[in-house]
Parts: sequence; structure tokens; C-alpha cells
Amino acid sequence: MTSYKLLLLPGDGIGPEVMAEVEKVIGALDALGLARFEIERDLVGGSAIDAHGKPLTDEALARADAADAILLGAVGGPKWADVAYEIRPEAGLLRLRKDLGLFANLRPAICYPALADGSALKRELVEGLDIMIVRELTGGVYFGEPKEITTLPDGSKRAVDTQVYTTAEIERIAHVAFDLARKRSGRVASAEKHNVMKSGVLWKEVVTKVHADYSDVTLEHVLADNCAMQLVRRPKQYDVLVTDNLFGDVLSDVAAMLTGSLGMLPSASLGAVDAKGSRKALYEPVHGSAPDIAGKGYANPIAMIGSLAMCLRYSFGLGEAADLLDSAVTRTLASGARTRDIAAEGTTPISTSEMGDAIIREL
Amino acid sequence: MTSYKLLLLPGDGIGPEVMAEVEKVIGALDALGLARFEIERDLVGGSAIDAHGKPLTDEALARADAADAILLGAVGGPKWADVAYEIRPEAGLLRLRKDLGLFANLRPAICYPALADGSALKRELVEGLDIMIVRELTGGVYFGEPKEITTLPDGSKRAVDTQVYTTAEIERIAHVAFDLARKRSGRVASAEKHNVMKSGVLWKEVVTKVHADYSDVTLEHVLADNCAMQLVRRPKQYDVLVTDNLFGDVLSDVAAMLTGSLGMLPSASLGAVDAKGSRKALYEPVHGSAPDIAGKGYANPIAMIGSLAMCLRYSFGLGEAADLLDSAVTRTLASGARTRDIAAEGTTPISTSEMGDAIIREL
Ligand SMILES: CC(C)[C@H](C(=O)O)[C@@H](O)C(=O)O
Ligand SMILES: CC(C)[C@H](C(=O)O)[C@@H](O)C(=O)O
Repeated sequence: MTSYKLLLLPGDGIGPEVMAEVEKVIGALDALGLARFEIERDLVGGSAIDAHGKPLTDEALARADAADAILLGAVGGPKWADVAYEIRPEAGLLRLRKDLGLFANLRPAICYPALADGSALKRELVEGLDIMIVRELTGGVYFGEPKEITTLPDGSKRAVDTQVYTTAEIERIAHVAFDLARKRSGRVASAEKHNVMKSGVLWKEVVTKVHADYSDVTLEHVLADNCAMQLVRRPKQYDVLVTDNLFGDVLSDVAAMLTGSLGMLPSASLGAVDAKGSRKALYEPVHGSAPDIAGKGYANPIAMIGSLAMCLRYSFGLGEAADLLDSAVTRTLASGARTRDIAAEGTTPISTSEMGDAIIREL
Repeated sequence: MTSYKLLLLPGDGIGPEVMAEVEKVIGALDALGLARFEIERDLVGGSAIDAHGKPLTDEALARADAADAILLGAVGGPKWADVAYEIRPEAGLLRLRKDLGLFANLRPAICYPALADGSALKRELVEGLDIMIVRELTGGVYFGEPKEITTLPDGSKRAVDTQVYTTAEIERIAHVAFDLARKRSGRVASAEKHNVMKSGVLWKEVVTKVHADYSDVTLEHVLADNCAMQLVRRPKQYDVLVTDNLFGDVLSDVAAMLTGSLGMLPSASLGAVDAKGSRKALYEPVHGSAPDIAGKGYANPIAMIGSLAMCLRYSFGLGEAADLLDSAVTRTLASGARTRDIAAEGTTPISTSEMGDAIIREL
């Protein structure tokens, strides 16, 4: 059996707790003969700052580059609020994304029927919701230069961030969105602000051009502010939603929150397919490091375990193992097991590790 | 009685329809001896493009500059989708904001009890909701330079937008937010992305500094993506929410949509207070030009009429007339009058002008 090189980067906050459950699942998959991994571990974010004074060492980056896939927990937290901008926890994650070329961030927003009542939205608006947000992840205002704060002659300051997008960057993310839509309902919505931003003008133009190769897919352009509204008003109108790095950051969080299942949603960040047909990939939960609940056993490990399932499927072609894992999660939920984030009022939630154990029992 | 110079800019789509109702209300206020206006009218947006080939003439801008206050309907629509970027409908509105120095955009998101069932959110989450979004309106990525698309040697393109914020720009909007909070619940949340953007770093730093003058107000910093989530999850946690131009665009739309009363929400865009104690001001509905329903009599004129009420109160100190107008709206709603956007399923809505008439009858 092939053994895949998997790098685990637990990160900060609840990251290590949910990653611990993934390690248990990996052990179980191995014991069942379903998948074999060479596991490496390293630090990223605040934990790397604490150990090495920076959020990602060159060694960790080299390890990430050499791995077949990366699983990441989450980074950041108030503990590192006073660290310099260049070495803040998030800089580690951003460097991983940029240096590994992980330009395509896939963020599913799925509403699990059993959890629909946990949504802030009325049940009928979210029941059956299944949106795939395709967020551009290595361009835009996250990485454009200049990005600086300068001091003016009078002692006051001036901050600049630069949003840059090229035709090539927009083309490749548009292809990802249209290819995905083909396998889904055949609908893409593209969100930008072409009425205010030149990058929005180019975004709309390039997405429209790429669309010409996909006559079987419908394309709708929507202004990002209106898109945010529509996500709240009638989220099921969307299937694949493609957008830039910054709008994707905000819109994917809105979409995830709608589902009432934030602790359940995995994500994939993918690079370009290389000559050998493989691509760099990092999988992580949509949720953040949630420092307020870290160390309490409250965290839901399902998003992290689901990220492993996505990894099995997309990076290793282990569809069967992924299916088994996904259905173990479904059965566990059907049995009524609930961590605090998804427990109904008045019921007793189980802990992070109890949820992990329950899923492994269902494997 | 003082006569105030009011410039009406109906704009595009449903703008002229809702402005027509405001004109009727102005006539009624005059007939009742409550307020007297010198009314001027001009074009902005698509209607100005159609008439003059550009979205705001110098004469219209001069008129706006000379007016005591401006009421604006809405601008834009697919009809002008192929107009050059520099003369698109939105450019007229952006020039008004920038050239008149209207840096403080106040966007209340209020959930009217009678309309709470119209929200996508569960009633208990929005009932009593009353957020004031304070959006910076003349800086950030909307106006920073360079803002351009260049063609690369290989024929592909590169688009750039620039987000710029200075200490002074952030200070003055922070003061607006803290001053407002003092008159409300004493709580400000400030949203930015200091973990990714240098302008976010400066934003957080300056807001924190200004806060030192307001020991009676509490300040919370929140990342813009998390803020979007929290608005959906538990919107009532916010009172005054201050943020930059672009995040303000998106977050205020989310907040407005939550209320189920998008057609009811007015907004004010205010300049600095001058030596004489007055300030430039433009009032407009939070909703857009809604070209899909234009000309059908479906539009709700309440947001536009509420914008007049805000104008009476904030620009002219006519609190009594504003109160009368606001309570006429409340009584009209209590009587069951509903335009399509707020009508319950199975009930018969009234038209834009019937709603205007009903409100005038209650005056
Ligand atoms: C941690 C942070 C840098 C990151 C982002 O802004 O991209 C996060 O919000 C996300 O969405 O993955
Ligand atoms: C019409 C458009 C330029 C405008 C904006 O982006 O500011 C609108 O969305 C708004 O929020 O007033």
C-alpha cells in the first residue's frame, strides 16, 4: 500500500485539540488497512512564535513543500496581539499559502439537516443549503505591494495596502470554479465590486471570457455587497460562488455561519496541477482558533476530521476511505452525539475527544 | 420661517418613484406650516449620463455644494453596464461624496417589531435590533491611487486598487462613532483586518487612541470576517459599529438585510462641522436602485421618506417635524399598510404612491 507523506500543523487555540482527534482517526484508518501515512508534525502560528520566534520556520516550510498534503488546525489568538506585524501568527499561514502557490481555496457551506435548527436563519431558508465558495487565495490585497505604514512630516501616519490582480490569476481561479460547477448544478456566481474597483472590472471581464469555454455552465455577476445581502436573504440561490481573496474571506464566513454548522466545515487550499498530475494541498477547518474555548474540550473536531476526509479524496484518490469516514461522521451525528457548538439547548454535549472516539467507533 | 435649500437628486431605477413621494411629503409639511424649503432638482447617475453624457455635471455639483442638504434616490443599473468606468453612474455618487467631503456615513439597521417576521433570521435574534453602522466614506480602496488597469507586454492585464488611510481620516470617523455611542448604549465595535492589512493595523491603533477620550464608552475590536459572522449569529451584540469604506459597504448591507426592513432604512452622509456650526449632508435610502422593480409601483418609499426625516433632524434642527413624520410612518405601518417588500404572504400590498398618501394622511 502506498504510504502518503502527511504534514500535521496543529497551530494555535483549539487547533491542537482537534488535530489530536485526527491523529486518532489516522491511527484507526491505518489499523483497518484503509490508508497508510508517514506522519510529520511541525509548528505554525503562535506556537511557532513561542518556540522559534517566528510563525513559520524555513524547515517547516521545506517540510510542507515536501509533503504530499498538509493538515492545518488554526492559527492566531490574543496571546500574540503585540507581536510585530511581520512575525504575527497569521504570517505563517499566509506564507504557506503564497510560497506553496495554494491559489484555490474551496470552502463548502453545507447545512446538515440534523443541524438546520442551529442556524440563525429560518429552517426553510437553509435546509439543503450546499454552496461551494471558491476563494482566490494568493493574490489581491493580501499580498499586493506596497503594503506599508509611513510616518508623515507632522508625525501622523499613512497606511497603504494594494490590491493587485492579473489576467492569469483570475483565469486560473475561474477555471476551478467552472470545472467544479460542471460536476455540481452547473451554476457559477462571481462576486466583485466592478462599480468601484478596477480589479473588479478586470475580474468581471476575465471571468466572462473564461466562461466562453463552459457553455454548459451559467454565469451570474453579482456585486459583493449585494452578494452578502443575498446570502442572508435567500442563500439557496447560490451553488458555486467565486470571488477574490478579501471578499472571499468575508463572504465565506457569512456562508459558513448560515449553516449553523461552523464547527463541521472543512476546506481545501489547492495549488496548480503539475506535470505529474499532482498538486500541493492544504486542508483546514473553516473555523478559526477560537482561543476563548481552547483547552476546555468544547471544540468540535468534525471540521478537522472532515478536512482529513477531503484530503483522502482530493490529494490521494482514496475515495472509498473518505466515504467511510464521512459516513462514520453522519452516523455519529444521527446517533445524537453533539459537541457544545451544535447541541440543542437543555441537552448534554460531549467533549472533543468523546466525539473523536464516537466517530472512530462508527468506522 | 427659515427656508432651507434642499437639492433633490432622484437618480435611477426606483429613485425617481420614491423621490416623488418625498416631494408630496415636502408639500404637506409646507402646507401644515411645519417646514419650508427652496427645492432644486438635478440629475445624477444614469439619468445624468442619458441627459449630459456624464453622471454628474459641474453645475449639479455646484448646486449640491450650495444646498443646505441633499436628498438622493439611488444610482446605477444594467442599462449603463457598458459605459466607460470613469463616467459610470456610480462615479457621480462617488464624486459627490468625495468633493463634498461626506466622510461619515451613518447607516442604522433597525428591526421594526411589526416587520420582524420578514427577516431571514429567527425573530428572537432580530427583535429589537438597533445597530448604527458608521462607515468611513471618502477614503480607503474607493479613492486611493494608483487605481488602474495596465496592459502587460504579453497582452494580458494587471489591475490595481489602493487602500489608503491616514491617522486624520481614522481619527475623525472614530470621533463620530464614539460621540454617537455616548448618546446610545455606550458601546463601539471597530472592524478591520489588522491581521492582514496595514491599514487595519493603523485603523486599530488610531481608534484605540481616540478611545482614550471616551472613558464612558466601551470599545471592542473585531476582525471584519468575524464581524460578518457575528452579525448573522447574534446581531444584537452590536450597538455602534465603525469600519472602513469597503468593509462598511459589505457589513452595512448584511446588517440592513437582517432587519427584514431594507426598504425602510434611511442613511446620512455627513461632512465636517464648519466654523458656522453647519455641515454638508446627503441623505439617501440604504437600498439601491432596484432596476428590476423600477416603474412598477412596487418600491417602498419609507426609506426615502425616512431620509427626509433624518435631514429635518440632523441638518435643520427640525426635530419636531421629524418626530411628526416618523410617527406618521409608524402609525401607517400599524394600520397595516404594506408595500410588496414587507407584505406578508397572501396579503395584498399597496403601491409606492398609496404608501406615500397613507403617510401624508397620518401627518
Ligand atoms: C487567519 C487569517 C489570515 C485568514 C484570512 O484572512 O485569510 C482567515 O480569516 C481565513 O479566512 O482563513
Ligand atoms: C453604488 C455604490 C458605489 C455604493 C458603494 O459601493 O458605496 C453603494 O453600494 C453604497 O453602499 O452606497
